[in-house]
Amino acid sequence: MPFVLAASVDHSSVILSLFIMLAAAKIMAEVFERLRQPAVVGEILAGIVIGPSLLGWVAPSELITILAEIGVIFLLFTVGLETKPQAIFQVGKRAVMVGVLGVILPFAAGYLIAIWWEGSFVEAMFIGAALVATSVGITARVLGSMGLLDTQTARIILGAAVIDDILGLIILSLVSSISQQGTISPAGLAKTAGAAILFTVFVGLVGSRVLTRLAPTIQKLRVSKPFFNIGLILCLGLSVASIYVGVAAIIGAFLAGMALAEATEDNHKMHQLTSGVTEFLVPFFLVNIGMQLDLAVFRDLGVVALAVILTVVAVITKFVGCGLGAWGMNRREMGQIGIGMVPRGEVGIVVAQIGLGLGVISGNFFAAVLFMAVATTLIAPPFIKILFAEDKDNDGIPDNIIEQDVSEEFTRIG
Amino acid sequence: MPFVLAASVDHSSVILSLFIMLAAAKIMAEVFERLRQPAVVGEILAGIVIGPSLLGWVAPSELITILAEIGVIFLLFTVGLETKPQAIFQVGKRAVMVGVLGVILPFAAGYLIAIWWEGSFVEAMFIGAALVATSVGITARVLGSMGLLDTQTARIILGAAVIDDILGLIILSLVSSISQQGTISPAGLAKTAGAAILFTVFVGLVGSRVLTRLAPTIQKLRVSKPFFNIGLILCLGLSVASIYVGVAAIIGAFLAGMALAEATEDNHKMHQLTSGVTEFLVPFFLVNIGMQLDLAVFRDLGVVALAVILTVVAVITKFVGCGLGAWGMNRREMGQIGIGMVPRGEVGIVVAQIGLGLGVISGNFFAAVLFMAVATTLIAPPFIKILFAEDKDNDGIPDNIIEQDVSEEFTRIG
Repeated sequence: MPFVLAASVDHSSVILSLFIMLAAAKIMAEVFERLRQPAVVGEILAGIVIGPSLLGWVAPSELITILAEIGVIFLLFTVGLETKPQAIFQVGKRAVMVGVLGVILPFAAGYLIAIWWEGSFVEAMFIGAALVATSVGITARVLGSMGLLDTQTARIILGAAVIDDILGLIILSLVSSISQQGTISPAGLAKTAGAAILFTVFVGLVGSRVLTRLAPTIQKLRVSKPFFNIGLILCLGLSVASIYVGVAAIIGAFLAGMALAEATEDNHKMHQLTSGVTEFLVPFFLVNIGMQLDLAVFRDLGVVALAVILTVVAVITKFVGCGLGAWGMNRREMGQIGIGMVPRGEVGIVVAQIGLGLGVISGNFFAAVLFMAVATTLIAPPFIKILFAEDKDNDGIPDNIIEQDVSEEFTRIG
Repeated sequence: MPFVLAASVDHSSVILSLFIMLAAAKIMAEVFERLRQPAVVGEILAGIVIGPSLLGWVAPSELITILAEIGVIFLLFTVGLETKPQAIFQVGKRAVMVGVLGVILPFAAGYLIAIWWEGSFVEAMFIGAALVATSVGITARVLGSMGLLDTQTARIILGAAVIDDILGLIILSLVSSISQQGTISPAGLAKTAGAAILFTVFVGLVGSRVLTRLAPTIQKLRVSKPFFNIGLILCLGLSVASIYVGVAAIIGAFLAGMALAEATEDNHKMHQLTSGVTEFLVPFFLVNIGMQLDLAVFRDLGVVALAVILTVVAVITKFVGCGLGAWGMNRREMGQIGIGMVPRGEVGIVVAQIGLGLGVISGNFFAAVLFMAVATTLIAPPFIKILFAEDKDNDGIPDNIIEQDVSEEFTRIG
């Protein structure tokens, strides 16, 4: 075109990128659904294909990263909307056990591998931290697409993942602080940890009651779609609050959804409106994960070995740790919980990026952690699907749903 | 917090900005609804209040601009979904008359004012171009919130606004080209204009038929929410295509919606999902318009005079031009069409920004055009509401709807 408008050039390339990401994600989702594999894996693979490693049509950018973050925030908000606080409190004790054991083992293993691989103390702490946090979004999306978010094991996984994220982010804060200051104040650590835990427990306990009481007032607002709009504001507001308190934004979004879960239980419109946003934005989150993987670093076989070992250890330690945390349940349920906690996804990547940004971890460790985060996310969903398949059949829901009715639709997240 | 995470600082400030924008927009929308004024005005005023001119809590940024653009893209997509091609073609002749007369008068007036104000030839061409394009999003939102998108006058306004945008962007392309090359090739101009018109007519004519035929296939896709996902891809895809053809992205989005309008006519889920996205993203578009207005430049009374004259002329020329274009209809309908075409909104701002970016218009002209764009957008909605109020009452819809039923909800855009 001879008359391309100067100021619109950047915007057009951004919209082009979004179009490519969305189209690739949805096409791969369709392919994977037809192969009876989880759509989420297809969407991550779409990112690898269109990203810098292969086709190079789209590269990760600040803007895409932020859209991806808004996407995962809304995903966790939707998950929260499906999670009644009562249900989490019922599984609270077990979730704490699963979460804590699922943190200790991977952290220790990651730390030891890095030391053995001649990493520094700080480097080893970062690798340990990167192995800690569970990317509950992935598991939630797979379980949601199977209509199984309402099972006891799903609730334990969600509860434990929240605990994991909090513990993981406390460790990360601690490690960042050590690497920056060379030392660590026990008082500062206690303050961070205390604030994070208090915030989560407080919002979890109080939020739902306040909103259930406010529901009639919200109903009377003149603004269109009052519950949805209150939900949007609460979702972003608690995400911001979480960050300032020192936990991940997604925890705030989850808590916002949970606070609204009881007040909007039968509010189909609310669920449809929310899933419109997730359906649009979550693909950016998933594709962005895939795009972050630079296949070129794996020409160095040493990096491949490190990446594979880290992945295997990440899977085993999380599976065993969380499985053991579910001691007392039957073996299948222990397996379900163990596998459900395996995906690291974006949280592992965030940890690695912070380490790289601070200049304390090497490029090889960064690549290996990225590989681990993507690989655990790719490996887990098919196994989650297999281990949960029986529950699905027991529920009487056919394996292959083409025409969903409205109520079933609400249990689908993405 | 002692342990703020380095890499998450920027993201937290972005999410904070989004939270402030969304909360301010929705609060002001609620206030304006209670005052029986259009919510859209409240949302733009929210931008002025929280923007750099007053509180300075949020400043326009590249990211917010792009979110705003995605917002207006989805707004026009929703408007398209409500617009059956048949309906536009029925009013086609009249829409062309309204659109063309609504372009000639404002362009000539803007050009003459700028020359009289000692602007250069190129400067005057830019000011003329900035007065041309109608911001149909604003009118559509007001009419949508009144449930009047399906009236004949609304269709004429939408059709004429599409024509206006095309003509406005052709003029802009022409002016940009003159200012950059110092000259203009008639062949290049003809190519731009021809491509833009052909694209719009082709997609408008063929899109709907193709999609109505493909509907049964889309229904059979395994991916969740197939129509909505096809809609998302089509919306972004045609937005990109529009930009490459040389028209605004919003025209592509509008055409995408229109192409799907017949195939998804009774698809309530599709409409709910889409309105979830617009409900979330459109406030960023509206607040961003408000934030662009720098109140400080109006300490210079000369700029105030220029801005006021430009605004008055912009309103009168559009009202008279478009009203005359509707010659043959009754006086009230002519008035409705005239006032419906008044808002310039983002398109005028885009024109001014391009001029400033190319270094061909002065800061004073820029400020005056911004003022005109925001002022026409603020002035029009109450008058639109008044002039259309009778239609609403004739429809038997009460003035003050608190509990909307589902079908009425679909006609609400924002």
